[in-house]
Amino acid sequence: MSCSHRLRLELEMKYRPFFMLLTALLASLVQAESSNSEEPRAVILLIGDGLGPQQLTMARNYLTGSAGQLLVDTAPVYASIQIETEAADGTPLYVPDSANTGTAMASGVVTNINHVGVRPDGTPVTSIIEAASRAGYRTGIITTAAVTDATPATFLAHISHDDCENPAVILGGTVYGRHFPGCPEEATENGGPGSTAEQIAKSPVDLLLGGGRVHFLPTIAGSNQRVRDAASENGFLVVDRLGQLDALTPGQRALGLLAKENLKVRMRGSGSRKAEPVTLTDPSNPNAPVILPPPMSCEPNPEFGDTPTLRQMTATALRLLSAENPKGFFLMVESASIDKQSHQRNPCGAIGEVQQLEEALAEALKFTESHPRTLILVTADHSHGVQIVPEPSAYGGGAAEGVHSPGKIARLKTPEGGLMRLNYGVNNYAVTEHTGANVALFGNAEAKGLVTPYMRQREIHTVMMRYLSLAPQPTSSNTHE
Amino acid sequence: MSCSHRLRLELEMKYRPFFMLLTALLASLVQAESSNSEEPRAVILLIGDGLGPQQLTMARNYLTGSAGQLLVDTAPVYASIQIETEAADGTPLYVPDSANTGTAMASGVVTNINHVGVRPDGTPVTSIIEAASRAGYRTGIITTAAVTDATPATFLAHISHDDCENPAVILGGTVYGRHFPGCPEEATENGGPGSTAEQIAKSPVDLLLGGGRVHFLPTIAGSNQRVRDAASENGFLVVDRLGQLDALTPGQRALGLLAKENLKVRMRGSGSRKAEPVTLTDPSNPNAPVILPPPMSCEPNPEFGDTPTLRQMTATALRLLSAENPKGFFLMVESASIDKQSHQRNPCGAIGEVQQLEEALAEALKFTESHPRTLILVTADHSHGVQIVPEPSAYGGGAAEGVHSPGKIARLKTPEGGLMRLNYGVNNYAVTEHTGANVALFGNAEAKGLVTPYMRQREIHTVMMRYLSLAPQPTSSNTHE
Ligand SMILES: [Zn+2]
Ligand SMILES: [Zn+2]
Repeated sequence: MSCSHRLRLELEMKYRPFFMLLTALLASLVQAESSNSEEPRAVILLIGDGLGPQQLTMARNYLTGSAGQLLVDTAPVYASIQIETEAADGTPLYVPDSANTGTAMASGVVTNINHVGVRPDGTPVTSIIEAASRAGYRTGIITTAAVTDATPATFLAHISHDDCENPAVILGGTVYGRHFPGCPEEATENGGPGSTAEQIAKSPVDLLLGGGRVHFLPTIAGSNQRVRDAASENGFLVVDRLGQLDALTPGQRALGLLAKENLKVRMRGSGSRKAEPVTLTDPSNPNAPVILPPPMSCEPNPEFGDTPTLRQMTATALRLLSAENPKGFFLMVESASIDKQSHQRNPCGAIGEVQQLEEALAEALKFTESHPRTLILVTADHSHGVQIVPEPSAYGGGAAEGVHSPGKIARLKTPEGGLMRLNYGVNNYAVTEHTGANVALFGNAEAKGLVTPYMRQREIHTVMMRYLSLAPQPTSSNTHE
Repeated sequence: MSCSHRLRLELEMKYRPFFMLLTALLASLVQAESSNSEEPRAVILLIGDGLGPQQLTMARNYLTGSAGQLLVDTAPVYASIQIETEAADGTPLYVPDSANTGTAMASGVVTNINHVGVRPDGTPVTSIIEAASRAGYRTGIITTAAVTDATPATFLAHISHDDCENPAVILGGTVYGRHFPGCPEEATENGGPGSTAEQIAKSPVDLLLGGGRVHFLPTIAGSNQRVRDAASENGFLVVDRLGQLDALTPGQRALGLLAKENLKVRMRGSGSRKAEPVTLTDPSNPNAPVILPPPMSCEPNPEFGDTPTLRQMTATALRLLSAENPKGFFLMVESASIDKQSHQRNPCGAIGEVQQLEEALAEALKFTESHPRTLILVTADHSHGVQIVPEPSAYGGGAAEGVHSPGKIARLKTPEGGLMRLNYGVNNYAVTEHTGANVALFGNAEAKGLVTPYMRQREIHTVMMRYLSLAPQPTSSNTHE
């Protein structure tokens, strides 16, 4: 039975004056009161690094089954996030990295790849951590990467290359087996702001948890002080284990360097297997049968040991940031190794880190039961090269007729009894690349009215700033802003 | 300034009894009236075949620039669609095709790949076209593919393989250069329902526009009648050109076979170029420099000629389905060659067909200005193998150091002055494959309250059926339902 639109309209028209009067009255009362309100507000931004659409479906298929639902899937607010990247000459780039996408979320501006908290020309921009700190909010950053890694760095530092993480590497050297020129002009000894670690040591953040201990060991130029000691001098309690924060006084600032580099990941492929190439039985004949890598499973990573989970770090942060805090806080939680494991063509590693993100979200949702004025947003910074492809190939049975991926594949046995084939066909290098698709944004009910179904990534910054009644970064006349 | 939640709650509590009374009164009045309402309702379902997340961003980057917005991006309702596929033995498959995904939308059930309007065991299920027809709605299907192609077929026919399109091929033969066993048990001569074309000729649909003339030329077994003549006998005005429908009497059924096979596509790569492999300068050395295919542009496809556009077909359908129709209608509009061009590794071809989908959506939105009780949904059936990858590679400058895609790439010059690199790295076969990521669903304001942010693909069927007050397909005890 269809319902009468005309009558509904008629009734609406009839009662509208009354509704409008009442609404206006309510609004004015609430408005008048709100300016004096002291009720704390909080924003929790959870970032799954590299958690693009294929990665998300892959994790769901494994963790819940293809008919199941992840926790993010139950979010009442959902949006598509458009990602923008701008080259030095102003032309658009179509594939971002964690530096420019992190900067978009932290500071609301479009910038170039590798650029951390600076515009393409190097001009620094204000991050939400800086603005929120100034306004009296507490702030926190949690990551499973080094705290100097691109994503956390964009909230804390301003530097033209995300690899300039410490006072040694900022001068250049060998990074990932290749020559790296560094960011010498930005080094302390050259009158610059210093490496990411040095800037973190001076940053106003209240709580910073992650790995990257090594980046705090080099000494700062022109001094005998290690970066770690500079952080202590700046008021951080610097610890190496999460448990050392148990007795922290509310309001005491802390830097937890919980691993030498990145935190270990939770899961791995059975027998440490990753994606593998197919084996050609006759390389001279493209139609000769190929031998596919045998199916594999995921298993707990024996190296994980007592690595703090993202959930544990989130619980610690929520406790410390909210205790005796009438103003509220901003917290960013990053599951960083979804990206790192995908670069390694390790689907099990990535799936385990999506699970960590889900658990951190569960912890955040639990927190909102006692703190309802908390905006939760979950998103990714960029998409990744992994793809879910047919098992077997849709064309002629695959192996039997030589149809195969030119890249590497993993054939993953899922707990629900399926076989999920994952393709890593972006490049032939030791590590794969990011891809350019839009990513998802999930929000809790507090996001209603703030998040629209289609947003630019930098508008995530605007939404968070508005929720905390902070003024977003002023935009320039640049076409990308 | 933060706003007082407590006060808002207090006021809400105070005024709630009043609001509830008024709301209940309004609802009961509207409800009572609606059961007698004769106001027409319509559903327009637009499907971009293969329009997965990468494909959508690729089209946006080209058509509007990376800071622009497509028409779908302005939709007030947006959801993530989870796709389910079930093998014959009940285990899940993680990459679908157009047959099983079309069946999910048309009939609300999860089935196996290649299965058209039937469960994995071959049991037919009722499509929305059949249910809506029975309830007195007019119905229409528009596609840029053959009308017997998988997606339109799922709304019109019931057969265990989407390639069993006509009375000849149903007996088996050579399809896409390979032996195809056909669906002999379902052939008319063996007491079956006959091929898709034969079933279309007997279907209740009011308007069917697309290509596939060839599938209506073979004769039906045991008769001298061509399928085309059977359609005429069943009440269809069968035409070969869209213009022949200009003078159609409202309510007269019509089958427009507007091309021999698929309709030509609008765009192509400059000089007919598609994605191409990189050239190795020294195949024995994986680190030797490679020569990348030179950048390319898109250009109008000279073969397009006077091919009807999807917009023209949509306008014709909306006019014919709505004229002198007090009940309403269901219309499915498919831009089919987004998928077909992607299989061919032809990014320009695919982008042009996304543009066609956008134009059809514009036409649908225009229609709602005079027909507000029209639900518009835009979605994809499945994702595809194309990826937007870094230009240049993120690792060492790409060409200079030998880092390259193992598949084929296109380096597409965008109108905004960028260079978008597209990777087709799923297989080494003549045609690429689908992928398994969730797809998007966009809705107009009528979708509010019906579409939730996260839905299973078969729930699209439920939403459409509810909007038309039709009973959705009963679900079985199957875990996937
Ligand atoms: Zn990365
Ligand atoms: Zn296809």
